[in-house]
Amino acid sequence: MALTKLNTYQPLTELSAIALAKRLRIFDDASQLTCEEIGDGNLNLVFHVVERITDKGIIIKQALPYAKVVGESWPLTIERARIEASALNLQRSFVGDLVPEVYYSDPALAITVMEDLSKLTIARTGLIQGSNYPKLSEDIGTFLGNTLYFTSDYALHPFKKKEYVKGFSNPELCKITEDLVFTDPFFNSETNDYEEELTEDVQHLWDDFKVKLEVAKLKKSFLTEGEALLHGDLHTGSIFVDAHQTKVIDPEFAFYGPIGFDIGQFIANLIFQVVSNPDKKETILDTIKNTWYVFSSTFAGHWKESGDAYTKVDGYLEYVLEKSFRDSIGFAGCECIRRTIGLAHVDDLESISCKERRLKAKRACLNIGKRLIVNRTDIQSIEELLTIVRSHSK
Amino acid sequence: MALTKLNTYQPLTELSAIALAKRLRIFDDASQLTCEEIGDGNLNLVFHVVERITDKGIIIKQALPYAKVVGESWPLTIERARIEASALNLQRSFVGDLVPEVYYSDPALAITVMEDLSKLTIARTGLIQGSNYPKLSEDIGTFLGNTLYFTSDYALHPFKKKEYVKGFSNPELCKITEDLVFTDPFFNSETNDYEEELTEDVQHLWDDFKVKLEVAKLKKSFLTEGEALLHGDLHTGSIFVDAHQTKVIDPEFAFYGPIGFDIGQFIANLIFQVVSNPDKKETILDTIKNTWYVFSSTFAGHWKESGDAYTKVDGYLEYVLEKSFRDSIGFAGCECIRRTIGLAHVDDLESISCKERRLKAKRACLNIGKRLIVNRTDIQSIEELLTIVRSHSK
Repeated sequence: MALTKLNTYQPLTELSAIALAKRLRIFDDASQLTCEEIGDGNLNLVFHVVERITDKGIIIKQALPYAKVVGESWPLTIERARIEASALNLQRSFVGDLVPEVYYSDPALAITVMEDLSKLTIARTGLIQGSNYPKLSEDIGTFLGNTLYFTSDYALHPFKKKEYVKGFSNPELCKITEDLVFTDPFFNSETNDYEEELTEDVQHLWDDFKVKLEVAKLKKSFLTEGEALLHGDLHTGSIFVDAHQTKVIDPEFAFYGPIGFDIGQFIANLIFQVVSNPDKKETILDTIKNTWYVFSSTFAGHWKESGDAYTKVDGYLEYVLEKSFRDSIGFAGCECIRRTIGLAHVDDLESISCKERRLKAKRACLNIGKRLIVNRTDIQSIEELLTIVRSHSK
Repeated sequence: MALTKLNTYQPLTELSAIALAKRLRIFDDASQLTCEEIGDGNLNLVFHVVERITDKGIIIKQALPYAKVVGESWPLTIERARIEASALNLQRSFVGDLVPEVYYSDPALAITVMEDLSKLTIARTGLIQGSNYPKLSEDIGTFLGNTLYFTSDYALHPFKKKEYVKGFSNPELCKITEDLVFTDPFFNSETNDYEEELTEDVQHLWDDFKVKLEVAKLKKSFLTEGEALLHGDLHTGSIFVDAHQTKVIDPEFAFYGPIGFDIGQFIANLIFQVVSNPDKKETILDTIKNTWYVFSSTFAGHWKESGDAYTKVDGYLEYVLEKSFRDSIGFAGCECIRRTIGLAHVDDLESISCKERRLKAKRACLNIGKRLIVNRTDIQSIEELLTIVRSHSK
């Protein structure tokens, strides 16, 4: 596709987004296009371009050179657009329609043009509104089992794996996670944000050296263990759903890290539903359980086809799955805590209008988080994890 | 320094090596230089250029685009020359004279011009000849404690660390280790090489699924855990010594890996001396012990100055050191086995002329190796490790 490329970065407008769509010839020449910027405005511009008559649409996403969440003072390179487009393409080769199709990308302009998912709902929003997503656990378990296996040393030639490790080196976005997930919430940091009524609970957490030692180990794992290409930010806000399909979006935090991190973040974000949505507790607990089962059976299924001689050694698959399980629990614990008292909160908790219930749910998250972090090596099964979550969410 | 660079790689000759030394103006213009190729010919050309009157010398090392050890059929990129020069420069910033000074390097020609160490002896050769090196453990412990700490997440800004991880990505040389250290010796591979008398011992090893499972875990650690910039090939053949000084050379296998790997390889190569040199057993065991003590106290000393908040958490330093100790023991075990029955052997064992004694020493190495691999989590102290090595080398 011959295109006149701009060489210098500049933010798109609704008009220039339409012009880009025309240049890319995604629509017929005679199409009448409309465009709306629909981003939540944290890190990216998101343009929804629609052809009026056919109602056919595309999404044009453009990374901004700063993080709006804390104003323009937090600069971020637009390199993350390249990482996002590369991750989407790679993931799509393993999981097909579970991620959106990328039609075009331009790393210099930080632009990714992709499939329009605007008819779907963000999973977090839908869950808060009480919707059921019967395919969610199956689809996310499949996404995890495939993306984490096929980017691991068990599937890739060592040269290819190391090429991916380099290509997905993602220092800036990793640092956001290193600070906001693993460090700040466990110390008296300026970025933290919690209701005054939680002061005593938070102080207890900060005084708990057992928790801190275990988080130190988990942060070490995040910093050093390049097991597979992670999505890196797999919360329920990164997933589009309806009753029939699931689409995992926004892999701009993608990098090579420990397998358990993606699984743990997803589990934690379901735990927020368990504590905030008592009517649906068992349904959501089932979603957690089934996600783990589908992940582990998908991963184990591929394992049999691995060319690595050691995958034939008795006990090695069990070792890898047990480590991933233990890590998942620990990372879930960190996510439970940071979303409760750290910088970035979740609507599952914040939208509870009754203060007493909200504080109760938040205390449950803090307690579940600590328990998962400290006891992760003692928890022997996903059912045992559910029992713990259940016991803290009565 | 203005130099006319050749753009295409070609191997140096003794004459062109002299011409290079002249162009670099390392010697006076009027100097009369002689040159001799002194490499062992495995992977590199090594030219020793000497000024006749002053006897001042330099070393010009040039990577070959193949590994001679298995003929020209094993191609290797000359990228490793860039890695070696970069690693030497970085290590030198942490340990000064414990590594040779680099005067000049040219990645395109795969050339590194460095300090002449030809008056020193390769540690392996000296040890086999019965020499004592009272500074060896202190110096190698210092080298390990400094290089492994200062390239870790405890010392570096996360952006700098990730830049090093990318810059020292070393797929080809890592694959040599992955195959020859972690895989081939534990399976019936063509590269293996052992006396017929050891067939039964080797068969026992291959049938031992406990050993294989633990080696699988160690290989996983080597493949995925980027804790620090390793030397990557720290055997006694990579160390120059005399009574007063120690120089660690040849870091062309450098990459980000688990801290214990360098320590374990060094320990294993001392174990070869313990089993082959009964008269010096206790001296060498002391060298092993002191290396660990100097490494761990050097590392712990720097730890106090870390800016990472988690380094102030009780028990975290102990966790990191215990993990490194356990890993060191496991990696030492792998090295003991692969140098006995794998492709690359060591003179410590091969130079034992009495066949019965040689086979006994080799069996000791196999047994020590298996024991260290399988029992590494039960061994609580360096003294306990020495007791095991002693018990197998009577």
